[in-house]
Amino acid sequence: MGEFRDSLKKLLAWLKEERIDLAYVADPTSIAYLTGYASWTEERVMALLVSREEAALLFAPAINEGELRSFAWPGSVAFYQDGESPWKKIKEAIAAWPARTWALEGGSLSLAWYRALQAEFPGSEMEADITDFLKKARLRKSPEEVAKLQAAGAQADLAIEIGIAALRSGVSEGELAAEIQYQLRAEPSFPTIVQIGENAANVSALPGEGRLAPGDMVIFDLGTMKNGYASDVSRTVGYGEVSAEQRQIYEIVRQAQQAAADGARPGMMAGEVDELARRVIREAGYGQYFPHRLGHGIGMQVHEAPGIQPGSDTVLEAGMCFSIEPGIYVPGVAGVRIEDCGVLTEKGFEPFTHFSKELQILPIKK
Amino acid sequence: MGEFRDSLKKLLAWLKEERIDLAYVADPTSIAYLTGYASWTEERVMALLVSREEAALLFAPAINEGELRSFAWPGSVAFYQDGESPWKKIKEAIAAWPARTWALEGGSLSLAWYRALQAEFPGSEMEADITDFLKKARLRKSPEEVAKLQAAGAQADLAIEIGIAALRSGVSEGELAAEIQYQLRAEPSFPTIVQIGENAANVSALPGEGRLAPGDMVIFDLGTMKNGYASDVSRTVGYGEVSAEQRQIYEIVRQAQQAAADGARPGMMAGEVDELARRVIREAGYGQYFPHRLGHGIGMQVHEAPGIQPGSDTVLEAGMCFSIEPGIYVPGVAGVRIEDCGVLTEKGFEPFTHFSKELQILPIKK
Repeated sequence: MGEFRDSLKKLLAWLKEERIDLAYVADPTSIAYLTGYASWTEERVMALLVSREEAALLFAPAINEGELRSFAWPGSVAFYQDGESPWKKIKEAIAAWPARTWALEGGSLSLAWYRALQAEFPGSEMEADITDFLKKARLRKSPEEVAKLQAAGAQADLAIEIGIAALRSGVSEGELAAEIQYQLRAEPSFPTIVQIGENAANVSALPGEGRLAPGDMVIFDLGTMKNGYASDVSRTVGYGEVSAEQRQIYEIVRQAQQAAADGARPGMMAGEVDELARRVIREAGYGQYFPHRLGHGIGMQVHEAPGIQPGSDTVLEAGMCFSIEPGIYVPGVAGVRIEDCGVLTEKGFEPFTHFSKELQILPIKK
Repeated sequence: MGEFRDSLKKLLAWLKEERIDLAYVADPTSIAYLTGYASWTEERVMALLVSREEAALLFAPAINEGELRSFAWPGSVAFYQDGESPWKKIKEAIAAWPARTWALEGGSLSLAWYRALQAEFPGSEMEADITDFLKKARLRKSPEEVAKLQAAGAQADLAIEIGIAALRSGVSEGELAAEIQYQLRAEPSFPTIVQIGENAANVSALPGEGRLAPGDMVIFDLGTMKNGYASDVSRTVGYGEVSAEQRQIYEIVRQAQQAAADGARPGMMAGEVDELARRVIREAGYGQYFPHRLGHGIGMQVHEAPGIQPGSDTVLEAGMCFSIEPGIYVPGVAGVRIEDCGVLTEKGFEPFTHFSKELQILPIKK
């Protein structure tokens, strides 16, 4: 069966150091990170329990049993049927473990399940939390992880190419998104965003029924999952000639994106990197039209730590992977967002996506 | 601005009855149900706070501000920027409200956010939970809701037709799923499941790279979202002639599905309806190959209450909507699942999907 993964060994070391008896890991991505077992459940309980006595239990719904029995895993497994109490089953499965002090993954475990767990283990102390430990453990990516993120990024570049090639007068946002998904045949890391013209100027707009017309700008924001790692990219293009003000807004966003990508270095605080881009936009007079953070970490999930946002004092280190995605959204005028994800190295920010950031003016197609 | 929705008025009445000062609603679907405001955030805090003094606050990230300002809503709104504490902002926004006793939506609120909220309101009592109240409120659908579920069901029937028309020798599960999504152009309520042959006999298998060959059975399990309501349907078909044992298994599942659909009535317990189907499968000798519950509620979400599962003493009432989806999965032999969602009326179970449940033997196409 082999040994536990390094990531799980680090968690074991942390439990010993903190003198905590066991950890309850609730998030499916955390479980995949610690064990390699990647499965997702909605309403049913799935958990990884780790004892500081070097034991670990994968606990899952009975419908996962076939899949999990064939998974190479040096720990133990237990299951529960619909209608059974998962908490009682967990108690039976770990009856031999010390379980006085617990560290829970509070960022994922619901309050209701926490209360049910607490009721099943009334004498236990459950104040400790492993959410931050796990977030931090996942912050710096290994070279193998970076290679997977680069491979996912190549898919995202391809998706942008597909989307741009599909632009034609009268096409809708939904049709463009469907065309990308169909031709790309990759698992999306989030629902593909295509925003046309006025809809692009609304940063949280849902897909609309607007039709592409000459002079529109189009935002593509999309990503894929490949080998368990995510990609995420945004590009904004012009369909036919765009106005001088649209062009100017594009240029400011491009410069802001470039300023952060060129300036980011290990040792800087995340808030400082945000400010590199935000200053460009503010000094150009569009500060109020950039309402979101500059970026987010990326890895096994499309959004993870670190958040690159105003005021964050998280110190960036080599190996951290995140997006740089400034935007300007002026209702009635234009919406522009440009985004690359990349890895921070001693030399700087190395993007996973390489599609051109010069303003693309696409030919009009009927 | 109009009045609060009936659903929100019922929550207000409940707060008064329970003498609880305010409710914290965390689940985006619950918020949509109570307010009509349908928006989804991932890592950021969105909440509906309801005071028994007949006030309500929609609280959202700043990126939702444009969308929410244009939403007709008789309550108040407040926002927070990335980098600000949402909890402090909530405290400011409800400073005038009594807030000694809270009811939280513990089924959705994470333990970490609960602890942050509690730290911001240290004198407050937060033991009460509204998860069950909201689940129960959503259990019985209004005629308007049933009409929306029927409309979504018609989309699901169409998706099955598309999938069956796309069957040809050598096609993969992923290609079939992509073809359905592309032709249907509807928002899926969950990732489309297509399982071919051996993969169909593994109830939790992920899409495989197996290719369709004559004699395979194929499970389609898919659904759509339409006007905020979900559909969900499963059909299993034969591609070319199938074996006598596969045919027999299909027939048992069909009879089990029929037995539950014919027998379900208001006043029965959910576990009794499960047993109507489970008995058919058990008596045919396949009990161990039906490892999941018979069904799940459906409405604004594809999975909601009531669970139709062994031992459940939930009493079914007219207006409840749920799936009936028995299955038999015998490794190396066959996997079959047949599912309709429908509404329970005084006359019985009225399905939202109508695609034939007679075993379809599809012609072989090269």
